[in-house]
Amino acid sequence: MKKSIGAEAVLYPAPVLVVGTYDAAGKPNVLTAAWGGICCSDPPAIAISLRKSRHSYAAVLERKVFTISIPSEQYAKQADYFGLASGREVDKFAVAGLTPVRSELVDAPYVKEFPLVLECRLIHTLELGSHTQFIGQVLDVKADEEVLIDGRVPDIYKLRPMLFSPKGHTYHGVGKYLGPAFSLGKQV
Amino acid sequence: MKKSIGAEAVLYPAPVLVVGTYDAAGKPNVLTAAWGGICCSDPPAIAISLRKSRHSYAAVLERKVFTISIPSEQYAKQADYFGLASGREVDKFAVAGLTPVRSELVDAPYVKEFPLVLECRLIHTLELGSHTQFIGQVLDVKADEEVLIDGRVPDIYKLRPMLFSPKGHTYHGVGKYLGPAFSLGKQV
Repeated sequence: MKKSIGAEAVLYPAPVLVVGTYDAAGKPNVLTAAWGGICCSDPPAIAISLRKSRHSYAAVLERKVFTISIPSEQYAKQADYFGLASGREVDKFAVAGLTPVRSELVDAPYVKEFPLVLECRLIHTLELGSHTQFIGQVLDVKADEEVLIDGRVPDIYKLRPMLFSPKGHTYHGVGKYLGPAFSLGKQV
Repeated sequence: MKKSIGAEAVLYPAPVLVVGTYDAAGKPNVLTAAWGGICCSDPPAIAISLRKSRHSYAAVLERKVFTISIPSEQYAKQADYFGLASGREVDKFAVAGLTPVRSELVDAPYVKEFPLVLECRLIHTLELGSHTQFIGQVLDVKADEEVLIDGRVPDIYKLRPMLFSPKGHTYHGVGKYLGPAFSLGKQV
């Protein structure tokens, strides 16, 4: 028998997405968002949802581009900080001791130390209530060579992305291998 | 130096979302989707993206509701099967030996054996290309009592949700605890 825990935004696991933008003054900024996910394969596209109050909100609308940097678990503190602080008040890159790199494809910065990056062009904006959903077409994905298998497939155990657990408000690493997708199910 | 791996739909980790619907004949059906995520807190809402070719696509549009059941890792085979088979041809619940339960709130079934369920009402439909994004307002979340802390917060180590790794096409469990969100970052 299942118990109601109320109408809430929960999903297990949620990702930890660090959204990179330049603000109106050209200062590189980052914001950590857990509300988002892939939304299309062709064109490849990702959705992120931000509150209007965030400094990054205006930046995405103004330049119509953003990056997503995926932090590895060794950067848990910095990733959490990027969600706590505001780029209106501080230079988050400087405080966290991390390095903004200007994307060659879009007018937005990414985090050099994070192992995987998506460069995105805004293609849809959808007002939903507390959050606005921004859908970005993925123009390119870049990764540190040392996290790639055969130079092209990210190895999740080298990438070591973080997971966010809503309601419980905790971060976790990636656990044990469970099996191959599009294959395990043939045993049913 | 980061290496380009091309413009692709990748994100680490992606969730494993089992979408429940009744088809035109009233048969309960389930489809596993990795493209999706939370997109709003108030109203609470979740986005999932489906291909038009899927049997569940018409079902979502027709009844304008769906459920999301989150499989625990012990059901990895069944969850993968739900993405491989088509509800046009088989009764996936029967083949997998799992139990459809009619939601009391929406005209859609969920998977009894999976520990957490979202009951959703379709509020937006967005054509993106290969996929259509469906946004569902979460009307309620229900969980097995044994996965809840204090009867209200899901314990991710009891829930044991699966993760999907795009491109590598593998499933993984939840790993080690990294720390508290909205708190770790204060140490930066």
